[in-house]
Amino acid sequence: MENLEEKEHIDQFELSKEYLEKLQTAITEQDDQFIKNTLDDTNPADISTILLEFETEESRYVLDVLENEVSAEVINDLDEDVRSKYLKEFNTTEIAAMLNELDSDDAVDIINELPLKDREEVIASLENKEKAKNILDLLRYEEDVAGGLMAKELIKANVNWSINQCIEEIRRQAENVEKIYSVYVVDNQNVLLGRVSLKKIILADDHLKVKDLYDDDVISVETYMDEVDVAEVMRKYDLDAVPVVNVQGKLMGRITIDDIVDVITELAEEERQMMAGISEDVEEDDSVWMLTRARLPWLIIGMFGGLLGAQFIGVFEEDILLVPAMAFFIPLITATGGNVGIQSSSIVLQSLASKSVFDDSFLKRILKVLAVAILNGIVIAGIVMGMNLILGQDIRLAIVVSIALFNVVLLASFMGTVTPLVLDKLGINPALAAGPFITTANDLLGLLVYFSVAHFLI
Amino acid sequence: MENLEEKEHIDQFELSKEYLEKLQTAITEQDDQFIKNTLDDTNPADISTILLEFETEESRYVLDVLENEVSAEVINDLDEDVRSKYLKEFNTTEIAAMLNELDSDDAVDIINELPLKDREEVIASLENKEKAKNILDLLRYEEDVAGGLMAKELIKANVNWSINQCIEEIRRQAENVEKIYSVYVVDNQNVLLGRVSLKKIILADDHLKVKDLYDDDVISVETYMDEVDVAEVMRKYDLDAVPVVNVQGKLMGRITIDDIVDVITELAEEERQMMAGISEDVEEDDSVWMLTRARLPWLIIGMFGGLLGAQFIGVFEEDILLVPAMAFFIPLITATGGNVGIQSSSIVLQSLASKSVFDDSFLKRILKVLAVAILNGIVIAGIVMGMNLILGQDIRLAIVVSIALFNVVLLASFMGTVTPLVLDKLGINPALAAGPFITTANDLLGLLVYFSVAHFLI
Repeated sequence: MENLEEKEHIDQFELSKEYLEKLQTAITEQDDQFIKNTLDDTNPADISTILLEFETEESRYVLDVLENEVSAEVINDLDEDVRSKYLKEFNTTEIAAMLNELDSDDAVDIINELPLKDREEVIASLENKEKAKNILDLLRYEEDVAGGLMAKELIKANVNWSINQCIEEIRRQAENVEKIYSVYVVDNQNVLLGRVSLKKIILADDHLKVKDLYDDDVISVETYMDEVDVAEVMRKYDLDAVPVVNVQGKLMGRITIDDIVDVITELAEEERQMMAGISEDVEEDDSVWMLTRARLPWLIIGMFGGLLGAQFIGVFEEDILLVPAMAFFIPLITATGGNVGIQSSSIVLQSLASKSVFDDSFLKRILKVLAVAILNGIVIAGIVMGMNLILGQDIRLAIVVSIALFNVVLLASFMGTVTPLVLDKLGINPALAAGPFITTANDLLGLLVYFSVAHFLI
Repeated sequence: MENLEEKEHIDQFELSKEYLEKLQTAITEQDDQFIKNTLDDTNPADISTILLEFETEESRYVLDVLENEVSAEVINDLDEDVRSKYLKEFNTTEIAAMLNELDSDDAVDIINELPLKDREEVIASLENKEKAKNILDLLRYEEDVAGGLMAKELIKANVNWSINQCIEEIRRQAENVEKIYSVYVVDNQNVLLGRVSLKKIILADDHLKVKDLYDDDVISVETYMDEVDVAEVMRKYDLDAVPVVNVQGKLMGRITIDDIVDVITELAEEERQMMAGISEDVEEDDSVWMLTRARLPWLIIGMFGGLLGAQFIGVFEEDILLVPAMAFFIPLITATGGNVGIQSSSIVLQSLASKSVFDDSFLKRILKVLAVAILNGIVIAGIVMGMNLILGQDIRLAIVVSIALFNVVLLASFMGTVTPLVLDKLGINPALAAGPFITTANDLLGLLVYFSVAHFLI
């Protein structure tokens, strides 16, 4: 098994503590030859991983030694928070030289991380003037819409061209466009008409025209489409790249699936953090201070919820003096409300993530939620009733607890379902509703129900 | 805006209630021509969406009218739970005819959903004997490893071939391999040596050999690699397809990014369900009964936690009679424990999802968690102390509550960090720890701390 484990990485970079130590020595001794020899053929994604183990200044030294093309890709592969630290080490001319090597979409991402005052300078220093123009074009879009995700680099062919002209265009652009999935076909006004796959081009007779070959039911997205919807379109139709058009249907750029994979991963992370009540994008290796800051807001909101709960229970102090056992069931009530609420929200989140074309009406959804809640409520309230009787609890209190539980399940289901729907309508991330927000709200609601029922029945 | 919304879908299928009604009529009147005319050119993914609106028998009618190739893709695009209902409508020969049209990996997925007794029959009925062999090969692998995700359909070229031979191979396989990203290069023993991109083939002189062109630092994965790791490799290196090799390095198949996008989406859904305490893969449109069944297990576990808590508080009945205000702070204590625990687990989940090559030592991680917990604990306990004094709460009780809170934050952080790490080591999905599991455990732990502190200090 040991052996198998090793084999698993045979085709990827073999990273060892030994190598890191040697690299450390090479940096200290300024042994550029060692750095070049060992890293120039390494995948930039692996170099990014290695550099995380070094101080920013040491990394800077390594990046200077490497080919500019490689350094650019390494910087591109870094996480945003690490990258912004690195970028501070470079001046605008150096950054411009790196951006020259990157696709326009990646270049724009990096420019967006620079201080406002540096942005214009970097763009002005770009040697490749077409790239500069492309970047300016892309900067007009919000980062989370198709326009903000697309790259301007793509291969397009006029519908009237011959296949040979098409191949010539691929040759001309080969250096600029790293990954070619298909050639997009446009008319004289640059309106997208369709696409030809590379496979078809390879297999076609040279004398054929693009017109004879192209596939006209190409799926495209518009520049302002939300990234979540772009991801859903690419997932649904199994696309590896999607052309982006403007309102007039003109071809503006293309989005490749690797960027969408990143979008999907980030959205999942964001949702997880919201569900857990973490208010900033933090990772385990962030500083103690950042981690604390990311966690405190929701803890404090939960704390005020708890203090409000304490004030509320205080109103019933006399009831508790009369029947102290009433206090025993507080955790049961609040926990059930919390669990039911989060379950309900999570099911709504699932629906919102994979929007169906024909949604059931709001009323129909609520009725279904109610049906599920009634079933769950009956089971929970029933078991608790049985247990309480077996354990010899006072029968009146047992009845109160079960009635309260049943109602808490109903209310928490309703709250858990409606809150994410409302947040979504308001344009707020509905995952917020599946976190401490709903737990805190349901805690208070649960206490309200429980003590009201108790007060009137005991 | 209305208008823009409409434009957004212009290149995708325009689905309307009107069309659905017409299709319903066509099905009832057996108007095959209408069905053929409107659906034969529609993307199979869209047909799948449409069929969800009809009864299984009606859908079956539509699928019979459509070309076998289209029906196969429609079935392939359906969600697993819907698909299994559909498959029951077809006999083994009909299923075999559809599988003939699908890639081997998709065919295997469908076979795995059939009753055991039907599987052999379906494979035996396959017309394409090579496909039958490929399917048998793939069935040997678990569904969640590279071997279970890969398709046997790919283009490979011997390293000694000329580019022309390579193009001939593409022509020969063109029908079997829908999407070609690159041609994999192997030696005479079928050992993977590298790859040639289609772009290079298009631009190469015909007299060149594969040997002169191919790229030898191809990234591959081994057949038994876990799907999570395959997804991470493809994401990290921005791959659109990855070749799969066996322990001897022989080329066994390839995995395309669309399948990995599905894996990533499913894993995120699974994690969300675990965090929400939902024990089966359910969606809002599942039956009331399924939804209830998926939710009850964790509700019942939470309920027993609550009952245990009630028993525990019962031990302190006399303390509560003495200081009923002690009961007021129960929700504050349990809510804080729950919130802190889920935050901690979620941060660990994040780390586990993007495994770093050099993990910090366990001790270092725990010390950091402790530092964050101490900071959070001081802030929360401090504010609560202040608020209690302002609100005129008994000073001894205020001290008890704050001491308990501080300790609950510490303990819940520790539990929330260690539990997912332990589950992960045991091979259990660590997301389980970020759900009701940790909340229930922390509720009990919180009560234990609170009442112990109270009992000794009051």
